Amino acid sequence: MTKTPAELEAELENLLQEVFEADTEEYHKRGFKRRVGYGTRPAIIHIDMAKAWTQPGHQFSCSNMETIIPACQDLNEAARAKGVPIIYTTTAYEVRDAMLPSDMGLWSQKIPVETLDPNSEAVEIDDRIAPQEGELVITKKRASAFPGTNLQQFLTVNRIDTVIVTGVTAAGCVRHTVEDAIAEGFRPIVVREAVGDRVPGVVSWNLFDMDSKFGDVEPLENVVRYLNELPDFAETTPTPAVPIAAPSLV
Amino acid sequence: MTKTPAELEAELENLLQEVFEADTEEYHKRGFKRRVGYGTRPAIIHIDMAKAWTQPGHQFSCSNMETIIPACQDLNEAARAKGVPIIYTTTAYEVRDAMLPSDMGLWSQKIPVETLDPNSEAVEIDDRIAPQEGELVITKKRASAFPGTNLQQFLTVNRIDTVIVTGVTAAGCVRHTVEDAIAEGFRPIVVREAVGDRVPGVVSWNLFDMDSKFGDVEPLENVVRYLNELPDFAETTPTPAVPIAAPSLV
Amino acid sequence: MTKTPAELEAELENLLQEVFEADTEEYHKRGFKRRVGYGTRPAIIHIDMAKAWTQPGHQFSCSNMETIIPACQDLNEAARAKGVPIIYTTTAYEVRDAMLPSDMGLWSQKIPVETLDPNSEAVEIDDRIAPQEGELVITKKRASAFPGTNLQQFLTVNRIDTVIVTGVTAAGCVRHTVEDAIAEGFRPIVVREAVGDRVPGVVSWNLFDMDSKFGDVEPLENVVRYLNELPDFAETTPTPAVPIAAPSLV
Amino acid sequence: MTKTPAELEAELENLLQEVFEADTEEYHKRGFKRRVGYGTRPAIIHIDMAKAWTQPGHQFSCSNMETIIPACQDLNEAARAKGVPIIYTTTAYEVRDAMLPSDMGLWSQKIPVETLDPNSEAVEIDDRIAPQEGELVITKKRASAFPGTNLQQFLTVNRIDTVIVTGVTAAGCVRHTVEDAIAEGFRPIVVREAVGDRVPGVVSWNLFDMDSKFGDVEPLENVVRYLNELPDFAETTPTPAVPIAAPSLV
Repeated sequence: MTKTPAELEAELENLLQEVFEADTEEYHKRGFKRRVGYGTRPAIIHIDMAKAWTQPGHQFSCSNMETIIPACQDLNEAARAKGVPIIYTTTAYEVRDAMLPSDMGLWSQKIPVETLDPNSEAVEIDDRIAPQEGELVITKKRASAFPGTNLQQFLTVNRIDTVIVTGVTAAGCVRHTVEDAIAEGFRPIVVREAVGDRVPGVVSWNLFDMDSKFGDVEPLENVVRYLNELPDFAETTPTPAVPIAAPSLV
Repeated sequence: MTKTPAELEAELENLLQEVFEADTEEYHKRGFKRRVGYGTRPAIIHIDMAKAWTQPGHQFSCSNMETIIPACQDLNEAARAKGVPIIYTTTAYEVRDAMLPSDMGLWSQKIPVETLDPNSEAVEIDDRIAPQEGELVITKKRASAFPGTNLQQFLTVNRIDTVIVTGVTAAGCVRHTVEDAIAEGFRPIVVREAVGDRVPGVVSWNLFDMDSKFGDVEPLENVVRYLNELPDFAETTPTPAVPIAAPSLV
Repeated sequence: MTKTPAELEAELENLLQEVFEADTEEYHKRGFKRRVGYGTRPAIIHIDMAKAWTQPGHQFSCSNMETIIPACQDLNEAARAKGVPIIYTTTAYEVRDAMLPSDMGLWSQKIPVETLDPNSEAVEIDDRIAPQEGELVITKKRASAFPGTNLQQFLTVNRIDTVIVTGVTAAGCVRHTVEDAIAEGFRPIVVREAVGDRVPGVVSWNLFDMDSKFGDVEPLENVVRYLNELPDFAETTPTPAVPIAAPSLV
Repeated sequence: MTKTPAELEAELENLLQEVFEADTEEYHKRGFKRRVGYGTRPAIIHIDMAKAWTQPGHQFSCSNMETIIPACQDLNEAARAKGVPIIYTTTAYEVRDAMLPSDMGLWSQKIPVETLDPNSEAVEIDDRIAPQEGELVITKKRASAFPGTNLQQFLTVNRIDTVIVTGVTAAGCVRHTVEDAIAEGFRPIVVREAVGDRVPGVVSWNLFDMDSKFGDVEPLENVVRYLNELPDFAETTPTPAVPIAAPSLV
């Protein structure tokens, strides 16, 4: 008797929790899976929350938007109240014929990026979390939002020390962006409820890997409380790189 | 009755195979998990095959070296016979006190990079795959071998089109390097038997994710055959970016 | 009796030629000012040939467009005949109030980038050299067209080995792009008649410096002949990095 | 009657001053040549002050070391008193045969980088400004100290906002580093007396260009006074990106 997809996924998630516990024990023994903690001058980065990813019917459509979209809305509300910068990314390509000199790079040979037309609605940010004036929308060409865009320049010059990351996908653009963020000197906080993907398992194991090595995976509630307790952005100064205690709210 | 670690790992690997099959079916339906294929002018990149990772007793020690080291040896032999460039990375930090201005970045707040002294044996490439004269050893500061090193310059100027990647760890430096490689325009070939990590599960799910979106995971046998069938490196020219059929040996 | 501006400039240009000769002699003695030469798979990059720079009346307006524009037209015609990729850059900023978190970086504290509105005609490529379909237009935020854009990815994945550079300004975006091009592994050819700036002297001394250390400054005639003698782009393969003799037409 | 080299240089420097005045007037009219100003959390970067550049007899030897070295010594003394980080760069290549896959990139086809052996004394920092423990020495492969090195990561994570730049050469590595510094979000202060080159004219026109567009060229006296008036580095916080008035000491 074969399992249904739902049964398979439930069985996997249960077993993964068991494995994550065992792995965490080993990581802690070795000094891995430390807390990078929150800094004092954050920005929000919503990765690829555009319609091709947030709405059904596209090859890029992701699951769980009924949770992810409200989580992003909560974050935006809290961030805007303090003047914390909000950045959105999307992914699109001018030349989508791989036989011509194209800006798709080699990625079209792994995934269907030829469907991402910059002049289509599909690559616009979802209306439910529409950018307001002064909020940057960055069109990227690869998984990470860092190389090949002006994200790093924006973060550095505005002396951001913490990036609060949401979006899709966990296994792709979110993870690669988080890996680059800590490498470039920004504390990555990944909002657990605000990250999605397309197939069973990948959200769980990528959150686990990110939390083990690259950033802190935090519940939405903590992140919103952190934003609420911040002074106005204009009055913040960044935390120097020396170790800080993880905030008590974790 | 609790499972032993070996039982837990076996159960996980079995279930993951089932999940990967279901996920692959969904990915194929959507046009993901395509083959990037081999190009015609490769380089080998061994990620962090230094003693802290390849030998027991260090916080960074990885498993499965009895398979990984011979796989790397086979690749080196085949590559050297054709003059294919071999590059090694290691990771080390000059200032390992996080209270001082340090080159550890924020990474010491997630993992124990303060143990990686550039003047210690621990960060030297394992003697069993010792670099020969003219083979580059790059000391990096982050997971990826790309940003912050001269790897990309070396690959671009030498017109490399394919990077054959081995080493550790699957969830860290190998994956981040593979993600960057395809983004920068190099076909990543990940050698299945030559990649390792520290805790159960992570090698499997990271190989699955890499193969789904960023590079082709290939058995050692195929990669060695590919190298054996290459002309001498000096006579190769790179493959242009247009789609090529995956080689028949896959 | 004071000199007129024209007299001052003429005197300067005469003296600079004398100095360049003396400097070149010293450079040659030391092995500097070699020829990087033309490769075999080029792209054209027109730097900031948008209306704010190419037309009068803007703070960014540049001189000598009566020579530069026809030179760019000649290059485009020769390039298009062979399918050689043509890339245009422009510079523009979403948030032009330096008191807000802005994408101008610190550059607005040196030069008037707050005048470069992405929704204005000023930042559109000059109609006389209008991009055709499939030709990339890259909006950059800094002097160089490389970091923070997808230029390098495009060049690498399309296996370009030579970048033919035109545009403005000699002391700013052209020079910085040329410096990065050779560093990243692309042979820079700067087209003498197709480069401009705003004030006396700077075109001459920046061409001299670029030619001494970063790329070859070549007359338009040679570059057009080189393009005319190329096979169709689709049939070219890039030159490996080993030294090649400068082409006889130099 | 031919001019002696000294006569030619004197004539050039006089005329350049006249031209710089006229150019500055035009720049000011257009809103160029603003002051980026000093921030509040600096680092010192000495570019290529290694023996091949600082001592006679090498193809890379530079002039005016009798002024440049003492200026660097003064800066180091003032910086060390406050714990301000000091970074040194040098340039060297592992594989110096351009016929082999080499880390020289294309640069060996313009300038004699094949003379820069990483195991030679020539690429060691000059003893008169020898690095102390904890001061980083970065070996770079190109003109700029930024791409391809860990400089940016170090500056970002340590929340540096200002880079005080010295060294050689004005037309090469110093200028390219300054161009990148402002682009990446760091206020460049170029120390007039501490920058050199090899042939007449290039120091003057490159200082002029840098000051016009990329950073502030400041007399040593001002920079030392700025360092003396800083609090201890550990007590500084970086200046946000909003415009600040140039300090009164300018």
